[in-house]
Amino acid sequence: MEMSWEQSITYSINTVYLLFSAYLVFVMQLGFAMLCAGSVRAKNAMNIMLTNVVDAVVGSISYYLFGFAFAFGDTSNPFIGTNFFALKDVPNTSFDYSFFLYQWAFAIAVAGITSGSIAERTQFSAYLVFSFFLSGFVYPVVAHWVWSSSGWLSASSTNPLFASGAIDFAGSGVVHMVGAVAGFWGALIEGPRVGRFDAFGKPVPMRGHNATLVVLGTFLLWFGWFGFNPGSFDKILVAYPSTTNQGNWTAIGRTAVVAGSTAGIVTLFGRRLLVGHWDALDVCNGVLGGFVAITSGCAVVEPWAAIVCGFFSAWVLIGLNIVVTKLNFDDPLEATQLHGGCGAWGLIFTGLFAKEEFVIQAYEAGDTSVVRPYGLFMGGGWGLLGCQVIELLVILGWVSVTMGPIFYAQHRLGILRISTEEEIAGLDISSHGGYAYNTHQEENQPRFYADYMRMHDHS
Amino acid sequence: MEMSWEQSITYSINTVYLLFSAYLVFVMQLGFAMLCAGSVRAKNAMNIMLTNVVDAVVGSISYYLFGFAFAFGDTSNPFIGTNFFALKDVPNTSFDYSFFLYQWAFAIAVAGITSGSIAERTQFSAYLVFSFFLSGFVYPVVAHWVWSSSGWLSASSTNPLFASGAIDFAGSGVVHMVGAVAGFWGALIEGPRVGRFDAFGKPVPMRGHNATLVVLGTFLLWFGWFGFNPGSFDKILVAYPSTTNQGNWTAIGRTAVVAGSTAGIVTLFGRRLLVGHWDALDVCNGVLGGFVAITSGCAVVEPWAAIVCGFFSAWVLIGLNIVVTKLNFDDPLEATQLHGGCGAWGLIFTGLFAKEEFVIQAYEAGDTSVVRPYGLFMGGGWGLLGCQVIELLVILGWVSVTMGPIFYAQHRLGILRISTEEEIAGLDISSHGGYAYNTHQEENQPRFYADYMRMHDHS
Amino acid sequence: MEMSWEQSITYSINTVYLLFSAYLVFVMQLGFAMLCAGSVRAKNAMNIMLTNVVDAVVGSISYYLFGFAFAFGDTSNPFIGTNFFALKDVPNTSFDYSFFLYQWAFAIAVAGITSGSIAERTQFSAYLVFSFFLSGFVYPVVAHWVWSSSGWLSASSTNPLFASGAIDFAGSGVVHMVGAVAGFWGALIEGPRVGRFDAFGKPVPMRGHNATLVVLGTFLLWFGWFGFNPGSFDKILVAYPSTTNQGNWTAIGRTAVVAGSTAGIVTLFGRRLLVGHWDALDVCNGVLGGFVAITSGCAVVEPWAAIVCGFFSAWVLIGLNIVVTKLNFDDPLEATQLHGGCGAWGLIFTGLFAKEEFVIQAYEAGDTSVVRPYGLFMGGGWGLLGCQVIELLVILGWVSVTMGPIFYAQHRLGILRISTEEEIAGLDISSHGGYAYNTHQEENQPRFYADYMRMHDHS
Repeated sequence: MEMSWEQSITYSINTVYLLFSAYLVFVMQLGFAMLCAGSVRAKNAMNIMLTNVVDAVVGSISYYLFGFAFAFGDTSNPFIGTNFFALKDVPNTSFDYSFFLYQWAFAIAVAGITSGSIAERTQFSAYLVFSFFLSGFVYPVVAHWVWSSSGWLSASSTNPLFASGAIDFAGSGVVHMVGAVAGFWGALIEGPRVGRFDAFGKPVPMRGHNATLVVLGTFLLWFGWFGFNPGSFDKILVAYPSTTNQGNWTAIGRTAVVAGSTAGIVTLFGRRLLVGHWDALDVCNGVLGGFVAITSGCAVVEPWAAIVCGFFSAWVLIGLNIVVTKLNFDDPLEATQLHGGCGAWGLIFTGLFAKEEFVIQAYEAGDTSVVRPYGLFMGGGWGLLGCQVIELLVILGWVSVTMGPIFYAQHRLGILRISTEEEIAGLDISSHGGYAYNTHQEENQPRFYADYMRMHDHS
Repeated sequence: MEMSWEQSITYSINTVYLLFSAYLVFVMQLGFAMLCAGSVRAKNAMNIMLTNVVDAVVGSISYYLFGFAFAFGDTSNPFIGTNFFALKDVPNTSFDYSFFLYQWAFAIAVAGITSGSIAERTQFSAYLVFSFFLSGFVYPVVAHWVWSSSGWLSASSTNPLFASGAIDFAGSGVVHMVGAVAGFWGALIEGPRVGRFDAFGKPVPMRGHNATLVVLGTFLLWFGWFGFNPGSFDKILVAYPSTTNQGNWTAIGRTAVVAGSTAGIVTLFGRRLLVGHWDALDVCNGVLGGFVAITSGCAVVEPWAAIVCGFFSAWVLIGLNIVVTKLNFDDPLEATQLHGGCGAWGLIFTGLFAKEEFVIQAYEAGDTSVVRPYGLFMGGGWGLLGCQVIELLVILGWVSVTMGPIFYAQHRLGILRISTEEEIAGLDISSHGGYAYNTHQEENQPRFYADYMRMHDHS
Repeated sequence: MEMSWEQSITYSINTVYLLFSAYLVFVMQLGFAMLCAGSVRAKNAMNIMLTNVVDAVVGSISYYLFGFAFAFGDTSNPFIGTNFFALKDVPNTSFDYSFFLYQWAFAIAVAGITSGSIAERTQFSAYLVFSFFLSGFVYPVVAHWVWSSSGWLSASSTNPLFASGAIDFAGSGVVHMVGAVAGFWGALIEGPRVGRFDAFGKPVPMRGHNATLVVLGTFLLWFGWFGFNPGSFDKILVAYPSTTNQGNWTAIGRTAVVAGSTAGIVTLFGRRLLVGHWDALDVCNGVLGGFVAITSGCAVVEPWAAIVCGFFSAWVLIGLNIVVTKLNFDDPLEATQLHGGCGAWGLIFTGLFAKEEFVIQAYEAGDTSVVRPYGLFMGGGWGLLGCQVIELLVILGWVSVTMGPIFYAQHRLGILRISTEEEIAGLDISSHGGYAYNTHQEENQPRFYADYMRMHDHS
């Protein structure tokens, strides 16, 4: 049977859409690298950027070999996929290469989140081990549960839990909470950085070395999120049958509009009240927290609800930051609070505010004859909210029982944390052959050096 | 009535095109942030980046609530739109969410231009006020006049002024001049930075702190301009009836080719003659000035005309920079000269060089039975040039009577400019809790600190 | 004859695809600028960034006026194109403006490669001359041979060499080797930087000044490569006749997946063994080397073969770096080794591993009735490998006989290399009016200055 003209057009448009979305998601890896680099001290900048490069490199091997198979294998196993290893039988009628690329870009983002929590004190070889395990196994299994049509918690399953399944459209839980819970255990087991809390347990500020990189990273993440959230529709050429001009293109546009800006402005003013000045880093993290929270429900809520979502996610972030500081927990990037806290809030938010019409559009291609649970506050009953809470809890549990022991074993073997001497000197000089920055102009400049000596020579 | 297959394809392709263009325009906000940060002194870097983040955050609230309604409300009011507040009745047959997103990205760029003019000496709370007002009201009204089909100066009106209307395709006037005129009044009322001119009125160079950021910002703006200019077609799937293979896709490609490079090379050589060396910042500003100028006519001129446009815009920029320095006017980013001067030149240029065939393509979907005025030098009469001059004048007037009083009132209330002490110390330490950069490796490094003390201890 | 609905759709989709790919390739110019800036010493950062801006500016003039004509003129001359100067007769049935834009973005990348080899010691005016010549003549001629359907070595010729032609899909040879061979002659004729080798010929490390910029540049290049390699299909809406769901969209997705990650991880471990630490710069260059190598065969090999390609390209890079250091050859960016060595390996690799099915897809639009040579190891005979070797040799020869004399003439005229004094002081201060960075907060800060003086005043 030959392909019809309509089919070849559909494949073309959808592939253009998905590929460029995948490229944008890939930019988030660069965004993480810059955000992390700017948020740590100069002496550890190269180390953390290297972890972000390595995520992409290591993740492309592990996700190609088995991560994608675990996540999207379609052998009807509700807990883990068991085919498509090393892209065998891809492309097929369900998945083309572009879908793999898109999912790969998600997988490498997970380890990027975790790298923030354990920054400035972790052995590089320990990082390689858990990054491989996280992006190749722990994350793909959760993705299978929630996103594969065979997954037990999936909203696109033929027989979903509570007739609903969890709606985690682009992964507040699947991506952000998974990365954050992993990071939480790593940071907890390692303990805080040397000098982060004084002898009385009072926090000592450890400012990142470069706010410009923080802003650069934030904007790049924002840019990439346009691939992450709207891109999660996978296909744009899907018309809604009961409308005259709407289709996935409408829902995708709405998803792009429903953004995290509100969270930023709340954090801006909230922190202003708490600490008395306007801080760029706080507003950046506020924007990111808003994005993390809206990621779950972006396709199924109204723009006004996104403002509600952002408003509360700002307070979640501000509140958790106060709590963890009191508990002497040290996460240099606030990744646990931001990706974990706001991610969890995002799951709940979706259970409260998902709109019936949009749920039908996103999960039933606009077929209005279907009846599904939706947001509790919108009159949609408890089915969806129940699934959201279950997703939250199983992610907490699954990532804890898999990643916790790994970090603990590395800790007991003494291969997790670097020595105090190395930490004080900085990872860049102890593990990576030199500092990230080399601003001394003097080398090979006898005149300059002579001036310098003369200036200091008072004997 | 069901949607036809052709309609759903058309919506899909046009939405892919417009959304990814919107994402590119959003990148310009990052470009501005980096360009501005690099062009100011290190002590004010965080402040100016924060203004760029805040533009996006504040602008998304104000543009959602009423900015979009003022600009594109379609109630036949030629001066201001009065429906679609808070996206009510969107999507409709004219506008989908993607169009809102695209226009939002334009709105936040306007305040970004203004932030450059008033950099390094403005209170942050004053910035919040006028940024909200500018992107939520002043700019949308101009956009309504020129771009809405109900606008009194619009080239796509059913009954346009002088049978022509102003052709400001992507906004040399609507965006760039508006931002620049606002910035002009701000910078003029505040006065120059402390130390910018000596006691005899001679300028003292105040170099930006980081040329790498300037180049990064310039390239990001260039990248974003591919969304700004070609993206302004909104739709790509529009075939021109009298051709066998042309349509908006052809015009869009031509628009992307018609770029600002020439301006860069003229500025490079022009400044080389004036100051005796090749300066990266000058060539960057030259490139940007060329882009600002071509933005108005990009869709309606030949590539060779774009070279003419860039050539003169370089001299406009060089000339205005000499003039304002003599007048002791201080705009740290040259934004008034660059966006205002080259923007104004761009409006005139379009009135001179617009080509009949391309005007018909861009504004009549290629319907060659329509007759319209076009560029004076191309034999198209005075109608278009007249409209261009009128646009130039009304933008000057409107932005002056709205933004001038706001800046003046803030000035009289003493809430516009920071104190001299704060200015000398830098905005980052006085308003934002710390400098953008923290390169001292000494903290927690007793050895380094000891060396440092020993080096300086000569007593 | 009117355009059919199917034609206008096809033009629209393909133009969206090609334009956004072109925008991504343009990002590579920014990537080069950042990679180069970070890899040189701070005193030369502005100079090298300026060369990258100038590539884009100068290249847009030279490629518009005659570069594109030399490369894609279709007058059946197998050695050089002779029509389409200054875009005359464009658009036509073969080429629209979007194709020109895409090819322009390639042309400016070539000079970017060369700028790395000759960094930190070359006169800016010399750079302007050879950049114009390289992007306007030397590169376009090679592009004509290999990529124009009239080219004598082209795989899409109607009568290809050895019934095959060379498969250099996105330009391991045409772009990367051309830039690298030019750079090789420049670097060789100039000689090493002052102080790069000591009196005994032992290398003295000259570390770049900013690893963050290196990582930023690498990620941006990676992002841009998604336009460079998959984009080289030009069209996405091409269905393969003997399949039910495959077309160029499938091949494009596969091409995007077939990435350079493996090379990165091999380099990471390889260098770890050699030098005893994990170096961010090495893993970045390893990733880039992998991309350079796969660029030739990306459209015609399996993902597993890409891993083989990356594995060997890592060793090529490590090996060549050892060799050139022993020979006291100094290329600050390793551009000769990376783009030349890995590019040459990529050409050979394609001759060994190209898969029949994919060659038919990429070069015969999936028409399985055609028979063509393919990879030697895949059973496809010697025809393709022969063409690949010939491409390698003719590029070596052509670029040497054109660029070698230019560099040599400039050298003999004394206008190629800067003086030793200028080199020690740095290009930024000697040629560009100041350093890239200005981190002294003291200017206009009497208090700070006074403190500074007091601290040093021990007399």
